[in-house]
Amino acid sequence: MEGKIFFTHHDIRDGEKRALARLHTHGADDDMVELLMLLNSHDNYYTTSSCSGRIVLLSIPCIGAKRAAEFVGKWHFEVDKAEILAAIAEWRARHRSGYLWLMAQSPVLHVSYADIDCARTLLTLAITAGFKYSGIKSITGERVMVKILSTERMDVPIGREGVMFCGEQYLEFILTIANSLLVRGKTKLLS
Amino acid sequence: MEGKIFFTHHDIRDGEKRALARLHTHGADDDMVELLMLLNSHDNYYTTSSCSGRIVLLSIPCIGAKRAAEFVGKWHFEVDKAEILAAIAEWRARHRSGYLWLMAQSPVLHVSYADIDCARTLLTLAITAGFKYSGIKSITGERVMVKILSTERMDVPIGREGVMFCGEQYLEFILTIANSLLVRGKTKLLS
Repeated sequence: MEGKIFFTHHDIRDGEKRALARLHTHGADDDMVELLMLLNSHDNYYTTSSCSGRIVLLSIPCIGAKRAAEFVGKWHFEVDKAEILAAIAEWRARHRSGYLWLMAQSPVLHVSYADIDCARTLLTLAITAGFKYSGIKSITGERVMVKILSTERMDVPIGREGVMFCGEQYLEFILTIANSLLVRGKTKLLS
Repeated sequence: MEGKIFFTHHDIRDGEKRALARLHTHGADDDMVELLMLLNSHDNYYTTSSCSGRIVLLSIPCIGAKRAAEFVGKWHFEVDKAEILAAIAEWRARHRSGYLWLMAQSPVLHVSYADIDCARTLLTLAITAGFKYSGIKSITGERVMVKILSTERMDVPIGREGVMFCGEQYLEFILTIANSLLVRGKTKLLS
């Protein structure tokens, strides 16, 4: 993603500078570029972390310990069984402790505003457009952070300590659903 | 839940009256009673829909059609395999179309405030206490709605059109995880 689109702001504060620098450095997945260009072309708000939706294999040491989780695989597009099986094989070889989860995650954007009325308008628009898990995450003295999140989601534990608890037929079944959720979320984002 | 705890307010508006009447009519699951008593004893805010966390079997006609979903089973406490299998047998006999999902859902509360500063304080407290999916859901002229939500969650598709796609061993595996998530969420709520 080109950095220039993030630097059209007239009055960039320190926090904003850091957020935009992070985006410039790390880029964004391709399905988000157009939307991020639009959002970041405005003067009184900017985006921070965002994702157009993805399918992930996550290794979690114990129930609820998401902070200590490690990605085993991460795809921003539809994925086939062979790719999943290859990633699982790697997990079995290298990460034999903890739980393995297959997840489908919906699009998410964080938008920072200087103005609560604008933030409220975006929140209402987002919920009306089907991003029903959206909300204002924080209101500090100077900024309002809106999280825009849709509902497409699947969180499936599939293995523990190197042992798979489901067969290939079941894996195919949930992978079809994960891909459908991914496409549905991206379609909502881009429509 | 006793209705009297909801009617200590001095200045109850129409919307508030309706929300409190709904709570009075429908009650709340037992694990929420103490917290709801505390929240509803204050004058400038009240709770609407809330749940202490639950495990559900949900029949969904097609991917993403959550509004048309039907509960096949719903438990606010740890559940054993026999209860799940009995509910699945009923689904197979009666709901042969669509997808069957086993879900663990974390505690959720909706709190309506007249004052955005109080709402902001609650939101910060909730996130600090581990309810990291909390957010302000709406700001209207008179009220601010805060959703308090934790992170314990599992969303697993297990069958389609009357056919189960997983075996009993896998069902036991995910049920153990669902029960752990449920207990973890409730512990967080009550601590």
